[in-house]
Amino acid sequence: MDRRQRQEPACKTETQWAVAVGRGGGGRRPGQPLAAGTCPSPTALLAGRQERFLLGNLQAHNQPASSRQVPQAGAQPGARKPRPTPAGMCSVPVPQAPLRRVAVTGGTHGNELSGVYLARHWLRDPRELRRPSFSATPVLANPAAAAACRRYVDRDLNRTFTDTLLVSRATPNDPHELTRARELDQLLGPKASGSDRAFDFVLDLHNTTANMGTCLLVDGAHNTFALHLSRHLQLQFPEVPCQVLLTRPPQSARESFSLDSVAKNGMTVELGPQPQGVLRADIFSRMRALVASALDFMELFNQGAAFPAFEMEVYRNLGGEDFPRTQDGDLAGMVHPQLQDRDYEPLQPGAPIFQKFSGEDVLYEGDSTVYPVFINEAAYYEKHVAFLRTEKLMISVPPLPPLSPTPTQVL
Amino acid sequence: MDRRQRQEPACKTETQWAVAVGRGGGGRRPGQPLAAGTCPSPTALLAGRQERFLLGNLQAHNQPASSRQVPQAGAQPGARKPRPTPAGMCSVPVPQAPLRRVAVTGGTHGNELSGVYLARHWLRDPRELRRPSFSATPVLANPAAAAACRRYVDRDLNRTFTDTLLVSRATPNDPHELTRARELDQLLGPKASGSDRAFDFVLDLHNTTANMGTCLLVDGAHNTFALHLSRHLQLQFPEVPCQVLLTRPPQSARESFSLDSVAKNGMTVELGPQPQGVLRADIFSRMRALVASALDFMELFNQGAAFPAFEMEVYRNLGGEDFPRTQDGDLAGMVHPQLQDRDYEPLQPGAPIFQKFSGEDVLYEGDSTVYPVFINEAAYYEKHVAFLRTEKLMISVPPLPPLSPTPTQVL
Repeated sequence: MDRRQRQEPACKTETQWAVAVGRGGGGRRPGQPLAAGTCPSPTALLAGRQERFLLGNLQAHNQPASSRQVPQAGAQPGARKPRPTPAGMCSVPVPQAPLRRVAVTGGTHGNELSGVYLARHWLRDPRELRRPSFSATPVLANPAAAAACRRYVDRDLNRTFTDTLLVSRATPNDPHELTRARELDQLLGPKASGSDRAFDFVLDLHNTTANMGTCLLVDGAHNTFALHLSRHLQLQFPEVPCQVLLTRPPQSARESFSLDSVAKNGMTVELGPQPQGVLRADIFSRMRALVASALDFMELFNQGAAFPAFEMEVYRNLGGEDFPRTQDGDLAGMVHPQLQDRDYEPLQPGAPIFQKFSGEDVLYEGDSTVYPVFINEAAYYEKHVAFLRTEKLMISVPPLPPLSPTPTQVL
Repeated sequence: MDRRQRQEPACKTETQWAVAVGRGGGGRRPGQPLAAGTCPSPTALLAGRQERFLLGNLQAHNQPASSRQVPQAGAQPGARKPRPTPAGMCSVPVPQAPLRRVAVTGGTHGNELSGVYLARHWLRDPRELRRPSFSATPVLANPAAAAACRRYVDRDLNRTFTDTLLVSRATPNDPHELTRARELDQLLGPKASGSDRAFDFVLDLHNTTANMGTCLLVDGAHNTFALHLSRHLQLQFPEVPCQVLLTRPPQSARESFSLDSVAKNGMTVELGPQPQGVLRADIFSRMRALVASALDFMELFNQGAAFPAFEMEVYRNLGGEDFPRTQDGDLAGMVHPQLQDRDYEPLQPGAPIFQKFSGEDVLYEGDSTVYPVFINEAAYYEKHVAFLRTEKLMISVPPLPPLSPTPTQVL
């Protein structure tokens, strides 16, 4: 599994912006278009900073009632109409030209086998990745880790794509994954320069041991193109729950570190539950179909399709919760049976989250309901994360404008 | 996960013998005592070799009908009354004295976390392992692998307990697990000498990624004590399917290699499905309860309880089935969705077992119905095993005689 964070790029355009409009599930089905007249006005969209502005209010609601700030009129959680926001913050720019350079990467973690074997298959036979306007490039991101069927050899590759690491001087003793990150940065980026040479989109394929079904990891609500792609996938696979997780915690200033951050844009597909080192046919087939549908969406975009605004239910990462531990740092307990496998379900304060080996329950001490994800993900034990807390939001995603002056309306 | 094979010991007694009486499920519930009069006669039990004698007939039924031998009267599959058998083959001797030296080993594979964390917990607080007549010793079998959360560091520890390896001369370049195997052999054995110093019983704790529920791995139908222990566990946990797998393939001459083979007797508890590197509370609790119940059984035996004969349904290992592979040895496909998670269910010739990445199905080409287990076990990819074929048998297990002249009848 992986969660990813995108570095906010140098501001090139503020014409597109995803606008958070409320917490919790709304009455509208995720992915359903907004009714006429509810689409954020161009003025609001141009204003920028909506997300960060609203976050202050959302976080206030995670504090005890006595200490909460009074939300400003119109900005309270549940408000569905976006308001003008402070200007100056920029989004991931939507593509202004057809996507020609697209990569599908598997095996960024060598024991997440759906992506490993899809990449290997496509490297032998890439026909599935061809579309009329482009051919996606398959990449086995960490062949050494895949050969060893381990997440990584020396360090987590998908935490290695920071500018700091990528531009550091190479030495003979560099960890394997740092060397490989530089190679991938050269192949798919480079990230640091903001060069036009970078790939237009990287779709990175992961598995999780958590019971997360299909989860689409997008860096933030500002990534309009990735959210439209996510919505397309939700509509294409209505029979399978397909959730969107915004990976960047609120007000995080952390530099992006994931593989897809080297390209102009990207997204992670995370499928589970699947044990590390196991290839399940059902999950393999679902991932294959999701990739095909993602490429179809890009082809539609390249052909000049327009995509209208819509509202979408998303989960936003609030940070990790560690296991109970002994004084020497070892586990003192495990995920509670009442929490196990209940990804995306509400967790109320006071509910049990861990069961200690001594038999004692550990209760959730947060102030408000959260929606845990990546519950009991194998790869996170070493990162001291038993699950991620998220908040559930409804966001408004602005239209994705067509590339040509005479777009084809597809939705 | 692990499957184990026990070296047949030097013949000390032939007074106990498990007698195979037929293939497939019988009308009697597994673990149910034989009706009066159906218990194998002392004559039959003393005769020995019943299992190997019957195997010839069972194997004949795995051949095409045209080439089958005609079963001898009374020995055909489904016959429920044991017959006199050739003499000379010996069983694992049943204990002639109370079990005083019992070990419970976890972390023989470092990423099978139920046993790892049970062992670590008991090393801190061993009270659960105490009984009036003995205290079981907790052992973290491969601490280095557990610390790395890997199956092993250099080689599979649970394939390293052969006489050949254990008595080989130590060198500074020995694999980590060979050094550790020698240490464990000194602690729990030694195996080679047949010394009285060896532990009386080793209960080795494993997990599998396969959908196997509770599986008790016993080396063969000759291991009367382990089969009585297995039956006790089945009766104690009637709500959870609890199967017995005889691990030694028919007519195998392979030397035993598993950890518990260093002791006088032993058994492996295998619980799943659980991903490698994940600790599930439900499986942890079940393993803990199974160990407690196993120790209770040993206490009953030590206190002089007698255990009557019974019939039992078991699965016997017939060998592994590899994945379809490319010319260079890589996977060309995966376990078929129709087979995935269907451990212990009948697999008919002609049924799909693999789905190739090209989309083509691979059908089972065996001659007769088998019962796959360890389907899609992560640790077996490197061993070229997608699943183990087994046959389902009903066996008669002779009584376990009491230690004292005035036993307590407990069942």
